Amino acid sequence: MSVAESHFDQPRVDPAPAIAELEALLGERLSTAAAVREQHGKDVSYHEGMPPDAVAFAETTDEVAEIVRICARHKTPVVPFGTGTSLEGHIAALRGGICIDVSRMTAILEVNQEDLDCRVQAGVTRKTLNEYLRDTGLFFPIDPGADASLGGMAATRASGTNAVRYGTMRENVLGLTVVTADGRIVRTGGRARKSSAGYDLTRLFVGSEGTLGVITEVQLRLYGVPEATSAAICHFADLEGAVNTAIATIQTGVPVARIELLDEVQVKACNAYSKLSYPEKPTLFFEFHGTKAGVAEQAETVGALAEEFGGSGFQWATRQEERTALWQARHDAYWAAKALKPGSEGWATDVCVPISRLAECILETKRDIQESGILAPIVGHVGDGNFHLVYLLDPGDAAQHKAAEEVNDRMIARALKMGGTCTGEHGIGYGKMHFLQAEHGEAVALMRQVKLALDPDNIMNPGKVVRV
Amino acid sequence: MSVAESHFDQPRVDPAPAIAELEALLGERLSTAAAVREQHGKDVSYHEGMPPDAVAFAETTDEVAEIVRICARHKTPVVPFGTGTSLEGHIAALRGGICIDVSRMTAILEVNQEDLDCRVQAGVTRKTLNEYLRDTGLFFPIDPGADASLGGMAATRASGTNAVRYGTMRENVLGLTVVTADGRIVRTGGRARKSSAGYDLTRLFVGSEGTLGVITEVQLRLYGVPEATSAAICHFADLEGAVNTAIATIQTGVPVARIELLDEVQVKACNAYSKLSYPEKPTLFFEFHGTKAGVAEQAETVGALAEEFGGSGFQWATRQEERTALWQARHDAYWAAKALKPGSEGWATDVCVPISRLAECILETKRDIQESGILAPIVGHVGDGNFHLVYLLDPGDAAQHKAAEEVNDRMIARALKMGGTCTGEHGIGYGKMHFLQAEHGEAVALMRQVKLALDPDNIMNPGKVVRV
Repeated sequence: MSVAESHFDQPRVDPAPAIAELEALLGERLSTAAAVREQHGKDVSYHEGMPPDAVAFAETTDEVAEIVRICARHKTPVVPFGTGTSLEGHIAALRGGICIDVSRMTAILEVNQEDLDCRVQAGVTRKTLNEYLRDTGLFFPIDPGADASLGGMAATRASGTNAVRYGTMRENVLGLTVVTADGRIVRTGGRARKSSAGYDLTRLFVGSEGTLGVITEVQLRLYGVPEATSAAICHFADLEGAVNTAIATIQTGVPVARIELLDEVQVKACNAYSKLSYPEKPTLFFEFHGTKAGVAEQAETVGALAEEFGGSGFQWATRQEERTALWQARHDAYWAAKALKPGSEGWATDVCVPISRLAECILETKRDIQESGILAPIVGHVGDGNFHLVYLLDPGDAAQHKAAEEVNDRMIARALKMGGTCTGEHGIGYGKMHFLQAEHGEAVALMRQVKLALDPDNIMNPGKVVRV
Repeated sequence: MSVAESHFDQPRVDPAPAIAELEALLGERLSTAAAVREQHGKDVSYHEGMPPDAVAFAETTDEVAEIVRICARHKTPVVPFGTGTSLEGHIAALRGGICIDVSRMTAILEVNQEDLDCRVQAGVTRKTLNEYLRDTGLFFPIDPGADASLGGMAATRASGTNAVRYGTMRENVLGLTVVTADGRIVRTGGRARKSSAGYDLTRLFVGSEGTLGVITEVQLRLYGVPEATSAAICHFADLEGAVNTAIATIQTGVPVARIELLDEVQVKACNAYSKLSYPEKPTLFFEFHGTKAGVAEQAETVGALAEEFGGSGFQWATRQEERTALWQARHDAYWAAKALKPGSEGWATDVCVPISRLAECILETKRDIQESGILAPIVGHVGDGNFHLVYLLDPGDAAQHKAAEEVNDRMIARALKMGGTCTGEHGIGYGKMHFLQAEHGEAVALMRQVKLALDPDNIMNPGKVVRV
């Protein structure tokens, strides 16, 4: 869908009155400079951006509330911004309005070591938090690759490589501070590990992509750094063997911390980009966390499974540096893929299916890609049944773009037919709204009722997730 | 709060027109018999019941939708009913209306062994499901004690003894079929292990206690039966030592499956009720799940911790029968407590706090109970920071009831001050609505907006969770 199509019927609001009030409030922390606006209207995705009319650099929750109240009074759209690393056009200001940049909200408000939780302002990134936690023996596991802000990760229900063990933001956000569409400050959830006190507003806001309110603080679960960690890499004769090893690992109940698939195209890309020399074959990266004995036991079980499915060369990376190199290569997969075809546009997309259907889904998709002639490496958080493609497209080649869209449509239809979802972790933004409808049908009408109840004027990140 | 106080301003609706239509639809499966109505208006709690005007025994989702559409047309309240084992007056028909009993909806619709999930109708109980799963090597872990229906467990966000390892219904419901207040059938969630596709309606309905819709089907996560299981019991010189052992176990990161506290009063009650002969001391029950080596390692770690905090007599129950006896005694704790004082009314309540505050919260509460002169055994899912009291009260002794209310108010205020919640797993019903306000403040206003959006006529279990 083009940005234009997403503009729907609601007219743009003249932003001048809101901007005038915001300038009085924020002084130099309100910017209308073209470069700043451009940068805040475009995420790292393939989707067209759209600059906001101004960018407000907020420093506190109270300030966010004040900004939202001004925007609400003038019915001016509000688009929250963390690091701009989203993937479905989430931050494009489709109807203009004010981008609230929370990247200066970087206070780590509390770390409760004994309770394994912390509270941070929304602009703290996951790497900053883990750096801060280094001497505590604790860490925050969710790792979507990009060094995203924790507010943004909550807003998009991020996950990543080790969700298979630790869950996603859905499982790891204990509570939120949210500014509602009318500028109230609301705290949801709490520090108790469980509660049956009322509606789960925390999880309603997690994944709401800024369409229900602005997340300004996040209470998070933390975990003890495992006593032992080991990583391994294993190559397979074919994609099927690799995927089946992942499936068997999960079905056997091994509490693996990470299990990542790279197809041979992606391995080639990583070799070139990260100066590695892995065999150009379908490959699994594993990581095991636990006690020393536990890790050894897990690795032994998985090693045997890999062998059964034609895996060879189970190589260990027990030293921290080796592991870092391995996971850095994995994290750079997107950039590596893009470098495989210099000058190309990269269109990243993902689906997630029940694990029993994963091999079938990946293999059919791979065949479809090959038949289309498009270069599109596959990587996957396969322990969760989640995999990603990056279509590498020639800018301006309309036929190729159309072919990619068709491959993508078929992949998502396939995933939905298998009981899966149109996005495991990238979110809806404006790029996948039609697929949300295909996936959830009548439930989207219910989402719309919730949206209208909490944001009757449709000022919170309008044009994303649900159409109103 | 009395039932009368909860009636608020909305008048009762004449149920006759809805009943006439429902009789035409359901024939003998609509009952207006006094005994049936009484039984459906009163849960197992201390709170006063209120019979519905009629009870509809539904058999399919379509039938529930038809019933709700009839009730919606006549603005007649709807109260869903599973097994009636809730604890905060959840099923009292405060404004009369129609109770929808789903206990005949007992189909197990699918079990996907390879994907570790299943889909059941709402009336299937947890024991029935586990019985059904027996030959598959899978099980559903959530265990609130009562053999509750899975629809009811989802509706109340139930948890129980092994939530410390497996999570609560929040973490284990993958999706729902829900009949909305206007009688639409909506499917939420899906079978993928993670998804970032739109608002998390599944978790909005989990814990909504029938106030947003009627849950008719539940998609659940399942787990492989662990290779090895062992249980142990350990007695402590004082409550503090027992609680501190639990805290240290969690903080050490031992993936214990169950860690249950019984104070000496409760142990005495269990001995008498379950014909056991445990020392009448604060006691912990443990259960460990994992590989053989893993279980041994966990047990060793916990044994050492218990010893450090004054635990003695770490006794093993490795045989299935011994474990069953031990957990049966734990599950019967409520009835054992009541038997401690024959003829008494039992008022069960619970709170949950961050684990670092658990010892303080339990000890202060225990002192308060002792000073009040009320008999009130304590049990706790202490790995989660969650504990329960049963106040054993003389019927008709108003002064004693008032004293218990005061102890309870102080306990909840204490828990909230410590960053905890007014209920870890019993829910709000109408018994804890004022505490919900104390805990969540402005967020309750947001809950109300959601409620009004999804149930504008307030027909879904009115008078529970939030006042409208």
